[in-house]
Formats: sequence, structure tokens, C-alpha cells
Amino acid sequence: MHSAGRSWLLLTGFVLFYVIYLLFGALVFSSIERPVEDKLRHDMETLKQEFLNLSCVNPASLERFLVQVLAANKYGVSVLRNSTATSNWDLASSMFFANTLVTTVGYGHTTPLSDTGKAFSIVYALLGVPFTMLVLTACVQRLMYPLVLAPVGLLQRSGMEPRSATAVHFLLLLLLVVLCFLLAPAAIFSLLEVSWSFLDGVYFCFISLCTIGLGDFVPGTQPGQQYRPLYQVSVMVYLFVGLMMMFLLLHTFHKMADLHGLTTFLQLPHCEETDEDREPIVDNKLEEESSYPSDKAASKPLEPGSQPSYNTINKG
Amino acid sequence: MHSAGRSWLLLTGFVLFYVIYLLFGALVFSSIERPVEDKLRHDMETLKQEFLNLSCVNPASLERFLVQVLAANKYGVSVLRNSTATSNWDLASSMFFANTLVTTVGYGHTTPLSDTGKAFSIVYALLGVPFTMLVLTACVQRLMYPLVLAPVGLLQRSGMEPRSATAVHFLLLLLLVVLCFLLAPAAIFSLLEVSWSFLDGVYFCFISLCTIGLGDFVPGTQPGQQYRPLYQVSVMVYLFVGLMMMFLLLHTFHKMADLHGLTTFLQLPHCEETDEDREPIVDNKLEEESSYPSDKAASKPLEPGSQPSYNTINKG
Repeated sequence: MHSAGRSWLLLTGFVLFYVIYLLFGALVFSSIERPVEDKLRHDMETLKQEFLNLSCVNPASLERFLVQVLAANKYGVSVLRNSTATSNWDLASSMFFANTLVTTVGYGHTTPLSDTGKAFSIVYALLGVPFTMLVLTACVQRLMYPLVLAPVGLLQRSGMEPRSATAVHFLLLLLLVVLCFLLAPAAIFSLLEVSWSFLDGVYFCFISLCTIGLGDFVPGTQPGQQYRPLYQVSVMVYLFVGLMMMFLLLHTFHKMADLHGLTTFLQLPHCEETDEDREPIVDNKLEEESSYPSDKAASKPLEPGSQPSYNTINKG
Repeated sequence: MHSAGRSWLLLTGFVLFYVIYLLFGALVFSSIERPVEDKLRHDMETLKQEFLNLSCVNPASLERFLVQVLAANKYGVSVLRNSTATSNWDLASSMFFANTLVTTVGYGHTTPLSDTGKAFSIVYALLGVPFTMLVLTACVQRLMYPLVLAPVGLLQRSGMEPRSATAVHFLLLLLLVVLCFLLAPAAIFSLLEVSWSFLDGVYFCFISLCTIGLGDFVPGTQPGQQYRPLYQVSVMVYLFVGLMMMFLLLHTFHKMADLHGLTTFLQLPHCEETDEDREPIVDNKLEEESSYPSDKAASKPLEPGSQPSYNTINKG
């Protein structure tokens, strides 16, 4: 119980630090990028006015104008009239950007304009990405009992054959994830975002939870969005919990694949290796100060089971 | 030897199937999106001509024009004169897009225009992402001996203390990856891409290899790029090998963290668990038809070492 208590305390600490890290990132990105954005926005306004004041618009002047419009648009600065009110680098938007960095979703609807911003993005992601994966793993670890071990146990006790129980459980979990993290959010997004169809919503949710993050659909970017900061924070929470569920789903699939002999067939590492499979590459008895390549292992290459775990496949 | 032979045969099969899957994706994306893109491109040309023919440009007409220009630009269709020659959905570009989907990098510099394209993206990534991770894992598995086990063994045999040997080896591997997959490619990109500085190159390489893929810098998108298809294929190969090295680096770090007691301290799963740590959650003896939640495990929640592996952290 003491160990479980410490375990939850650690998790709380992780999540708390994660939120603080996002807030810190938001503050830095906002302070670096906001002035640059303001300047670019002002320049674009001037450019637009100058263009409108031209006595005649010829192809060359239009081309010059459009080159600059599109360059500014690449950084999320639009010349359109109704988009000038909202900044891409206010606190909530900066936090949203920081979140897309550390989760590796990376929509790219806004990107750093300055070299300082780019350099900070690198450093921020270098620390943030592994830490986020660590927090997600720690969360999934705590979800394994209620969402995987307990239900499969229940199915088995109800008289189901073990392998069937894991298959039925996986399908139920998949259904749960598809319903709660794909279809339901897609329906909500298609209601909240004026121009999104239901397919657009599904497409957004899927592309986000796979961390592909193409960025052609990003919630909360339309002008005049109500409660924008709150909406953006909600999307961040959705992304975090959704990614957690994707990790859980993949881990469950890997366990099931082990059990059905799929990983053995494909000569890939098992989710949790059996004693017979494992090579003594890592002798974890730290007090003995032994390292992972025991001489035996080093002289015996390419035993699939002994090498990196298939758990590295974690992106659904 | 027979097993090793089969192992390499499987890997070759995986890589071959990966290339075929990319080619298949490229063909489908190209055939779906090319006509839609051509139409949009034609519409934009007409729109631009109409705009140029206006006797006077007022704010309202400019606004209407810019709304459409920016909407088309979002899908990678530019109205600029010098960008009309190259399509975003020729075979090489479609393959590049397919590659950014399955590796979850997702630059989003071009995105599907049609609903069919979006639906196909979902199905394509659903199968492609796990398969790509599988291929990458299989490759990393084969690289573990020459790049991790053998060098650490060598360091140990040269009289180094085991824990120091793993730390020194990790630092050397990190240096190798930073030099060969970050700094050298960045230098090459800053030479090949006219508008990129060296920092831009580093930023692109880092953001790509973390699979964040913001898409503000994408190689081979400037107009008039020489040998564009060849260049795009080279970038794809770079991304694949780079991701493999990131996986390897992370896996090595995890092993080292185990050895130095970091995972134990943070109550996170070990890279490869010791006999003492492991719970009999998965009894892999398939012939006994046992499932992962033995009653004992099901009644004993939250023993960290027994639950999902920290290997789920696989994204550098």
C-alpha cells in the first residue's frame, strides 16, 4: 500500500510538472513570438493599405503583394480583416502550440517566426517530448489494471477461454476508444466548428491521435471563436487523454499478439518476455555492477527475442 | 544460423512491403487528388485573371480575393506565377506525402483536398503507421548488436567499469546521431535550399526526427527545384534511417536508465525486466492456453514493474 501510495504521488507529480512545463513554454513562446508577430501583422496592414492605394493593379505588383501575403500566412499571420483581432501567441494559443510540440502532434498552423523561437522550440521539445511520453506511460501503467487486467479476468471467470477473452476484450476496448475518442469528439467538433463536416471531425481526431497532425483542421482557429482559451485547453486535455488511450490500446494489442503467437511468428520482441526467451543482456542486479552486454550475449548476435522490445511500437 | 537467415529474410520482406505500400499510397493519392488539384489550380488562375481585370480594387473585392487565395494555399495550391508548374500530387510528391503519414511526421504542407482523399488518409495511416513502426522496430532489433552490444562489450574488455561503459557508449552514440543525422543533413539542406539558414536546417531535421513535423520548412517545395523526385526520395530515406537511429538511441537510453536505477527510482517499467520484478501477467506458454491476467495478478493492482513497459516511450 505504501508503494502504491508513492506510485500515485509520483504520477501526480509528473502530471503537475507537465502542466507547469506547458505553462512555462507558453510564457516563453508568447514573450518571444508576440512582438515579432505584432510587427509582421502591422507590416501586413501597411502593405495591404499600400496595395489598395495603387492607382492600377498590374500582374507584377499583385505578384509582389501575394508573395508577402503567403509568406506571412505561413507563420499564421493572415491579412484578412476579421483575423487581425486574435493573436496566435497569446497565453492559451502559445500553450496549445507548446502542447503540440511535446506530444509530437505538431499541427504547424502557427510556427515560430524568429530564430530565437526556433532554437527554443528545439530545446523545449528535446526535454518535453521524452518527458511527455514518460507521463503518458506512467498514466497507462495505472490504467492497465482497471481497463485491461480486471475486465479480462472477469471475462475468464465468466467461463470464457483465455485467448478468446483477450480477443473479445481487445475488441471491446477498441470500440470504446473509437466511440469515445473518435466519433463522439468528431460530432462535437463538427458542431463547434462552423465549417467542419462530421468527416472533417473524424479526420481531425484520427490525424491528431496518431500524432501525424497535418494541421489542415485545427480547432479554435476560426475568427470570433467564443471562449477560445477554454476551448483550446479542452482540446489539449482531449489530446492528452486520447493519446493515453491510444498507448493503452496498442499495448493491449501487443500483449494479445504475444498470446496469439504473432510476435513469435514475425520474430519480433515480446511485450513481456518469458524466461526462456530472454538473454541475459541486461543483468539488472545493480549491486553486482554488471552491464548489459554479458560476454555471452555479445558473442551471440541477432537473437530476436533478446533485443529491443516491440513495445517501441507505441504510436497507433 | 537458420534462424538468423529467416530473420533477415523477414526484414527484407518488411522493407520491401514498406516500399510497395508507399508506392501504392502514392498511386492512390495521386489519382484521387491530382484532378481536384488541377481544378482548384485552374479556378485560382481564373480568379486571379478576373481580379486583375477589375477596373478598381476596393477593400471588399480584395478581401474576397484573398479569402480564396488563402483557402487554396492551405491545400498547397499557390496562386504565385512560378509555382504553377509543379504539382503537389505527382508520383514523387504523393509518395512523400504518404511517407509523412505513415511515419506520423505529417508536415501538412500539402493535405488532401477531397473527402475521398481524407477518408483514404485515415485508412492508409490506420494500417501504415503500425506497420512502419513494426519495420522500424525490426530494423533497430538488427542494429542492436553492431551499434550497442558490441561497442559496450569492447569498452568493458578495455577495462572500463560496466556502468561507465554504458554511459560512455551512450554519449558516443548520441554524438554520432547528432553529427550524422542532425548537423550534417542540416548543412546539406542549407546548401540545397536557397532560403534556409543552417539553423533552419537543424530546426527542420530535429522537428522531423521527433515526428513533430510542423511543416514550416519542407525540402523540395521551392519552385524550379532540380531533380525534385530524386531529392524527395532521398529525404524519405533520410527520414526513415533517422527515425531508426532515434529509436535506437531511445532504446539504449532506456537500457542505461535501467542499469543506473533511474526507472526503479521513478517506478517506471524496466526495458527488460528481471525475473524478480515480473508478475506472471502474461504467461506466454501458449500451449497451456493461459491468458495474461492470472487470478493472482488480477487481484493485485498497481505493481509498477508488472505493468506496461517504459518501452512505450519511443519518440526521441
